[in-house]
Amino acid sequence: MTARYSEDDLIARLFAPIAGPAGLGLTDDAALLPASSQPTVATVDMLVAGVHFFADDPPAAIAQKALRVNLSDLAAKGAEPVGFLLSLALPGDWTNDWLAAFAEGLAADAAAYAAPLIGGDTTATPGPLAISITALGRAARFVPRSGARPGDAVYVSGTIGDAALGLALRREPEFAAKLSPQAREYLDGRYLLPRPRLDLIPTLRAHATAAMDVSDGLAGDLAKLCRASRASAVVEAPLVPLSRAAREAVALDPGLLETALTGGDDYEILFAADPAFEAPPGVVRIGDIVAGGAPPRFLDQAKTQMIFGKMSFSHF
Amino acid sequence: MTARYSEDDLIARLFAPIAGPAGLGLTDDAALLPASSQPTVATVDMLVAGVHFFADDPPAAIAQKALRVNLSDLAAKGAEPVGFLLSLALPGDWTNDWLAAFAEGLAADAAAYAAPLIGGDTTATPGPLAISITALGRAARFVPRSGARPGDAVYVSGTIGDAALGLALRREPEFAAKLSPQAREYLDGRYLLPRPRLDLIPTLRAHATAAMDVSDGLAGDLAKLCRASRASAVVEAPLVPLSRAAREAVALDPGLLETALTGGDDYEILFAADPAFEAPPGVVRIGDIVAGGAPPRFLDQAKTQMIFGKMSFSHF
Repeated sequence: MTARYSEDDLIARLFAPIAGPAGLGLTDDAALLPASSQPTVATVDMLVAGVHFFADDPPAAIAQKALRVNLSDLAAKGAEPVGFLLSLALPGDWTNDWLAAFAEGLAADAAAYAAPLIGGDTTATPGPLAISITALGRAARFVPRSGARPGDAVYVSGTIGDAALGLALRREPEFAAKLSPQAREYLDGRYLLPRPRLDLIPTLRAHATAAMDVSDGLAGDLAKLCRASRASAVVEAPLVPLSRAAREAVALDPGLLETALTGGDDYEILFAADPAFEAPPGVVRIGDIVAGGAPPRFLDQAKTQMIFGKMSFSHF
Repeated sequence: MTARYSEDDLIARLFAPIAGPAGLGLTDDAALLPASSQPTVATVDMLVAGVHFFADDPPAAIAQKALRVNLSDLAAKGAEPVGFLLSLALPGDWTNDWLAAFAEGLAADAAAYAAPLIGGDTTATPGPLAISITALGRAARFVPRSGARPGDAVYVSGTIGDAALGLALRREPEFAAKLSPQAREYLDGRYLLPRPRLDLIPTLRAHATAAMDVSDGLAGDLAKLCRASRASAVVEAPLVPLSRAAREAVALDPGLLETALTGGDDYEILFAADPAFEAPPGVVRIGDIVAGGAPPRFLDQAKTQMIFGKMSFSHF
């Protein structure tokens, strides 16, 4: 076996350079964030090889996905990141090169999103690579899930279903081969690397009555937002924005529309706001919040309710 | 297989009751902590079955250990807990009963230490149980690792080495059988369940120039404190407080003194303070901070420097 960093060395060489001032050089027991007049927003997500990503995905992409899914949660709440803590359980076969690439990916994103590393813990595991990231942010106004009211319209950012289709393509290479190379590459990239919509924070703070990120699938996540808001919703499925690549996939297999509407990992923002609100480019209205306690209804082109086999992604 | 909670159900039934107001009922994307005039202190520790605990340890004890090691970090920094986030990767064979007992243990500690659950993430894993907890606290004065100065005395709370000896006994049942049942039970308990020294927060805030919790072994942790403080230390090993049970074990095998001084999992507090400081009961002076960059020296009864095979616990 080639030589590997000691626990102290890997922190000092790979992770300390990503640390912000609150991380105290990663040489203390804890991070120290200065007091602020704004509330602190905190979120955590754990990713496990073989569950949330493929063990042989590029290490930089694994690190970035683990960070970005958390930044996505902050964005949905209208919170700007202030830093993150990283727990890393490394399987027996890690190498210095693998870990250096992982840290490089993390460093690039920490810089790009102004979210420095402020603490962490590294351990060995007899199992698969596991990464838990806790992201901390500050919000001038926290946008809850629970504020949607009948009369609000339902909006979504970006395009929906790309990541779920990207995952489906990985699992069905024969089907994938029928798609154009551009579509394959685009969908695969959307699965591999989410883009947290921090750019939408000002819009959400100013206009959203309720918001969440779409991580477990549009249909199931809208159901959660409605439950938290004690309301229901009606969505016109043809209004749900699909990428050109997703449309190509759905044209080949119309059943994939359900995958797009119920599959996870979009990391776009779903929110409710006044229907008179002028949505920024790339944000579209897909339906309305309505009174009642029923799960949201998705209507097809003929205004017939769509019935999904499974509303959203679940681990169990 | 018996029926198991869905992801939503286990959150609603087992974890939401442990949630504090900042957790928003565990039905939002993130926790929301009100603004405070005090800085926020954040720390994370990840525990993996087979590495940090035994998979067949009582689930309540596993949960409590995972929380307490984090509260111990807060205590060492003079920070009172405000809440914690839990990442839980569950192996394939979890049962509702196991998880209910885990949540019960967590609930008891959350109440006892005034540290409510404020967020989390639950996932399946093909590997061993893994738990990552991020604890957040607030500190009127943050006690760093880096403030020790030559002339300060070195103090430690409680007794040292019990947990490392408890682990050694588990691994060597033949040796364990030579100990009194009281000593066995005491040392085993100290390994299984640390007691975070939140009671020492006022003392540390008022008097400590530097502090950390003893998690990887007294010798190695003191070396870290000295490195952070750019100083060295001299410890008189006979002054290091050993429990009656630890003394019994060391009497049977004098080599276990090294285990006690270098083994991990004590979760007592090591700190530097003015030698004139009046230490509270259960806190003893074990040596002095001195100038220089050498690793701390431990002197035996004859004032001869002790040489340890291994300074502290390391995962790699």
